Amino acid sequence: MSSTFGKLLKLTTFGESHGAALGGVIDGYPAGIAIDEDFIASEMARRRPGSTSLGTKRSEADSPEILSGIYNGLSTGTSIGFIIRNTSQRSSDYSAIEHVYRPGHADAAYDMKYGIRDPRGGGRSSGRETACRVFGGALAKLLLTRHGIRVDAGVIECGGIRAEDYEWNPPFPAPLAAPDNRNLSAMIKAAEDARNESDSIGGIIECRITGMIPGLGEPVFGKLDAALAHAVMSIGAVKGIEFGSGFSASRMKGSENNDQMRTDGSRIIYLSNNAGGILGGISTGEDIIFRVAVKPTPSIAKEQLTVTDSLEETTISVHGRHDPVILPRAVPVIEAMAALTIADHLLIARAYER
Amino acid sequence: MSSTFGKLLKLTTFGESHGAALGGVIDGYPAGIAIDEDFIASEMARRRPGSTSLGTKRSEADSPEILSGIYNGLSTGTSIGFIIRNTSQRSSDYSAIEHVYRPGHADAAYDMKYGIRDPRGGGRSSGRETACRVFGGALAKLLLTRHGIRVDAGVIECGGIRAEDYEWNPPFPAPLAAPDNRNLSAMIKAAEDARNESDSIGGIIECRITGMIPGLGEPVFGKLDAALAHAVMSIGAVKGIEFGSGFSASRMKGSENNDQMRTDGSRIIYLSNNAGGILGGISTGEDIIFRVAVKPTPSIAKEQLTVTDSLEETTISVHGRHDPVILPRAVPVIEAMAALTIADHLLIARAYER
Amino acid sequence: MSSTFGKLLKLTTFGESHGAALGGVIDGYPAGIAIDEDFIASEMARRRPGSTSLGTKRSEADSPEILSGIYNGLSTGTSIGFIIRNTSQRSSDYSAIEHVYRPGHADAAYDMKYGIRDPRGGGRSSGRETACRVFGGALAKLLLTRHGIRVDAGVIECGGIRAEDYEWNPPFPAPLAAPDNRNLSAMIKAAEDARNESDSIGGIIECRITGMIPGLGEPVFGKLDAALAHAVMSIGAVKGIEFGSGFSASRMKGSENNDQMRTDGSRIIYLSNNAGGILGGISTGEDIIFRVAVKPTPSIAKEQLTVTDSLEETTISVHGRHDPVILPRAVPVIEAMAALTIADHLLIARAYER
Amino acid sequence: MSSTFGKLLKLTTFGESHGAALGGVIDGYPAGIAIDEDFIASEMARRRPGSTSLGTKRSEADSPEILSGIYNGLSTGTSIGFIIRNTSQRSSDYSAIEHVYRPGHADAAYDMKYGIRDPRGGGRSSGRETACRVFGGALAKLLLTRHGIRVDAGVIECGGIRAEDYEWNPPFPAPLAAPDNRNLSAMIKAAEDARNESDSIGGIIECRITGMIPGLGEPVFGKLDAALAHAVMSIGAVKGIEFGSGFSASRMKGSENNDQMRTDGSRIIYLSNNAGGILGGISTGEDIIFRVAVKPTPSIAKEQLTVTDSLEETTISVHGRHDPVILPRAVPVIEAMAALTIADHLLIARAYER
Repeated sequence: MSSTFGKLLKLTTFGESHGAALGGVIDGYPAGIAIDEDFIASEMARRRPGSTSLGTKRSEADSPEILSGIYNGLSTGTSIGFIIRNTSQRSSDYSAIEHVYRPGHADAAYDMKYGIRDPRGGGRSSGRETACRVFGGALAKLLLTRHGIRVDAGVIECGGIRAEDYEWNPPFPAPLAAPDNRNLSAMIKAAEDARNESDSIGGIIECRITGMIPGLGEPVFGKLDAALAHAVMSIGAVKGIEFGSGFSASRMKGSENNDQMRTDGSRIIYLSNNAGGILGGISTGEDIIFRVAVKPTPSIAKEQLTVTDSLEETTISVHGRHDPVILPRAVPVIEAMAALTIADHLLIARAYER
Repeated sequence: MSSTFGKLLKLTTFGESHGAALGGVIDGYPAGIAIDEDFIASEMARRRPGSTSLGTKRSEADSPEILSGIYNGLSTGTSIGFIIRNTSQRSSDYSAIEHVYRPGHADAAYDMKYGIRDPRGGGRSSGRETACRVFGGALAKLLLTRHGIRVDAGVIECGGIRAEDYEWNPPFPAPLAAPDNRNLSAMIKAAEDARNESDSIGGIIECRITGMIPGLGEPVFGKLDAALAHAVMSIGAVKGIEFGSGFSASRMKGSENNDQMRTDGSRIIYLSNNAGGILGGISTGEDIIFRVAVKPTPSIAKEQLTVTDSLEETTISVHGRHDPVILPRAVPVIEAMAALTIADHLLIARAYER
Repeated sequence: MSSTFGKLLKLTTFGESHGAALGGVIDGYPAGIAIDEDFIASEMARRRPGSTSLGTKRSEADSPEILSGIYNGLSTGTSIGFIIRNTSQRSSDYSAIEHVYRPGHADAAYDMKYGIRDPRGGGRSSGRETACRVFGGALAKLLLTRHGIRVDAGVIECGGIRAEDYEWNPPFPAPLAAPDNRNLSAMIKAAEDARNESDSIGGIIECRITGMIPGLGEPVFGKLDAALAHAVMSIGAVKGIEFGSGFSASRMKGSENNDQMRTDGSRIIYLSNNAGGILGGISTGEDIIFRVAVKPTPSIAKEQLTVTDSLEETTISVHGRHDPVILPRAVPVIEAMAALTIADHLLIARAYER
Repeated sequence: MSSTFGKLLKLTTFGESHGAALGGVIDGYPAGIAIDEDFIASEMARRRPGSTSLGTKRSEADSPEILSGIYNGLSTGTSIGFIIRNTSQRSSDYSAIEHVYRPGHADAAYDMKYGIRDPRGGGRSSGRETACRVFGGALAKLLLTRHGIRVDAGVIECGGIRAEDYEWNPPFPAPLAAPDNRNLSAMIKAAEDARNESDSIGGIIECRITGMIPGLGEPVFGKLDAALAHAVMSIGAVKGIEFGSGFSASRMKGSENNDQMRTDGSRIIYLSNNAGGILGGISTGEDIIFRVAVKPTPSIAKEQLTVTDSLEETTISVHGRHDPVILPRAVPVIEAMAALTIADHLLIARAYER
């Protein structure tokens, strides 16, 4: 239940950061799609530890091994199993915190839920599980590309500094995965300052889905924005999501927020895209645009008040190889979840094509 | 698929605003719960058209008829069917817009998806479908109450005016369902002004779930905040959601945003609740707090540019009995979706109790 | 969970035999299908009490009221709600058995499961719930007809007497819904004898799905025969199912049971159909053939040993208007479940069409 | 969709017989269960190629590697990933049949469905995928054992020869996994004869679930027998299933088939078990008994008529290391699917415990 995402195109995952491997199963993937392993590797590389100078210094190759569902380079239509070996496990990093709950982490919540907890690196709540999402997202993108749909994301706010005056020309470069803009160096400096202060910062990531097909999404509980919200909110550090004008829409008049329509005779031309490409939960064909609030990484070296798992008060400084800002590595994860969601709904819509 | 919500506790709905009836099925509801029909009626009354002077003047009784699953006032454990007759159908209201797409509505999206559309009032994308959600939410609340869990929501921003200096003492009174605060009259005036201008406004609703049990929610794709986001984003006019400090968290340092911990010896005392009661997707036992961006009602009398379903340019003024602000009537709907989500996860957690 | 069937095309039902109404929701039904209400009525008529001289003398009109999802005679693609009012409730019939467990019924099992039980007519385990299945099946058949697929069933064994030398020319006539054959009068007499003895009999129903499309069904856990088995075994009185040669196949050699192949140059010609139209869980395009074991109706007037719900020994004679043989009324129910299953898998297959 | 089984306890699998590995994910498994790897290995050994003198001479170790979800020998409540490397791949065995459809196999059906097919050993329709089921079933049994529930199966008919006068004292020994009975040597000889004739035989397997808890299973579409039928019919060679008296029940009178009841004052004593432990889809607490028809192995060396994938007529003799009778190796697979089903429903029932 908790480890499966999707209705027709399903990603099921397993794995903790410090076990033998992560991995999963992609089921419901169409037959006959060329599986471009170089593309998959490039997507994995965008997320992997060590991919950005702003992130963890821990480096893992994150090379997925595909175990089934591919024959002669083509998907066979059957389930695709994959594993990603953990190669940089330093469990000793975690011995100091075996019995101490890290603030901002799920340690206490897991202990209360399960009565048992793998203390090595956060177990299933580790950001490491997102490697499997990126693998699945890469396959979803291979499918979407055939339908002309692109999914891109970029950092538009970092440590409270908003990108200004930028073009949307993804993919956005390291180290921040942000569009070139006049605040870019200030945004990067915010992250570097946080690291120097043994602290961390968060920010906002925007995602745009272009080349969209109208009619994806289902009424009532199957709305496309609801599905995207589920997908993206399931990523560890995400604390909020808004579509189109989002929270700003709540401050507009109806006459401002409604996207008025004209036509060139062959299709509708929307005069604005406050809706973010989705109305009534169904894609209009306009670009889908949403923004995601990412909290600052909870693992910081700065001393904080906490308790042990036997309820004794203590303090903690989380050392180890943590990211002072997770934003650039979260970008491909958000793209992956969006791509899986759109691909899933694309298949559903095809079932009903007239 | 699109009309069913939940995993163990499931709500399936049907119905358009101008058909014979709405209704649905609640499945997976535990046996032996006293079904308080007065409470259900009071919840329905909070949402019904005509419940607030700020809303539509259309009035519907919205009396659900329970058809199964109850015996001698107790739930039997089997599926509970219900219908809500439509009594105030004025289809003639909609004849003028049969072939015109209303800006901000799903009219064009439905037409492109289905190739057919019930033009009377928005069909399945009508806000009227939320009556079934409130019915289901009322049953969920009856279950949660037995476990000491409460779900309440209130309007904390209206037309850009934020509530200030308020206590959280729900339920909040008509006409706005907002907490008493020094901006309350300005918030109400914003709605009245919008009506007088033939326009509409949106706002922000906060929801708090108190008396929470730790350990609800599942790792990875079954996170409690992801499930709540799905639930709430599936409501028509919602354009964004944030948990705890939400988008503000993205502007904090990790040392500010992490909720540090102390203890009284018997339980953890969190020194703040920036997490909004959920860490790693699992409830901590703290209050769950989220805020929801509601867009201005798209149906406005003000003239707007649009096109017909044969792609001719035209203008539209949506007359009829529409809400200039949907906020007070959205409050019980948000509570209902939150209650259904929490009740569902409560049942799931019980399956694994040690 | 328990009240929903299907993956893309979903039927969710509610209702007990002695409540106000039965009904349900059909979700995921394609848009633009002409909803032939006469056909639906004729399917309902085949199952309704009083439809056969061999069945109960209780007569119910079983007229479904469609409440949503249809506009101008066409399906709109949104969920279709329906109710069937109970008009012939004689709860007094059941007062004698309120605290007595009927042998062969689910009374004791429900009591142990739920701790509460609606004693009027078996509640959710009443055969009356199958009216909703037939309604859903009628809609499924309307969809299948457009693809040239037919689903028919007939009684091929009654009270141990097997039909011999018959043609498969459905639909089969009242009173037994069996093909014309040289044992037909003996089969009918077996049912009449059972009634005269205050007893009941069972039998075997065969179902054939013709005009099949190859490629329906999914590997491993989504096999088409597994889905059909689930569908049909969920009908109250069914105790077994076999596909193609079924239990006889277990007595054949591989060389006898394998369906050898020839070709006319344009398609495969199978020299036999021991597989029953399904290999590896996927339809071959041959007719799907399965047979269903139906137990004798448990409600009999003959005195039987039983216990009360306070565990006192007693005897029971179940009076009331029961069917001495349920076979003819089970025929349309089996067709309905098969039609829903095939239609569901047809939609799934379309999602993956190349 | 097709590769996931279960509602709360879920098994998702991947893998073909001739790829790098099989494997899967078990999700929704309770925390704190001691994972007895010796027991898992012993279950795997019962199914593995080479486990019986009557089966294939191919031998694979079938050692699963557990990759996640276990810490210090206990389940952590999170998803359990596992892989089983393929070590005895002889793809050359299959080159002769790359373009020829084997009778009784899913080759043609897969080709028509997917337009692409991994010809090495049947791909996803290979019996080899059942190794993952046995792994999942072993975990399910570890859970059921804690509740006193046992699942056992044995061969009761082989090549048309029925076991007579036997005790049910599982586990049953190699080579046939049949109970000791006066026809045992004839049953074994039938298998040996089939091998000598380059042919194969099938048979019937009985499964008994003892120590059952009443109240498992859900009404209408979630019936326990429907779920078991789905589970067992999803195994490759299975062509039929019957519960309790099954097809024989269809030849009984109601007065014979109904299980009459007495009591010892503390519980119901059923005077027979024609129902096979399930009434109305809900377990009564009596032993669950079902029988399964297994077809003869389709891979036989005897020459058969068939066609190529370019529709040319040809003949085929399937050489390689095939089982003349799959029955003894199917026994643990049937147990596994039954155990997974019962464990899943046990968890569901616990969610509703009063």
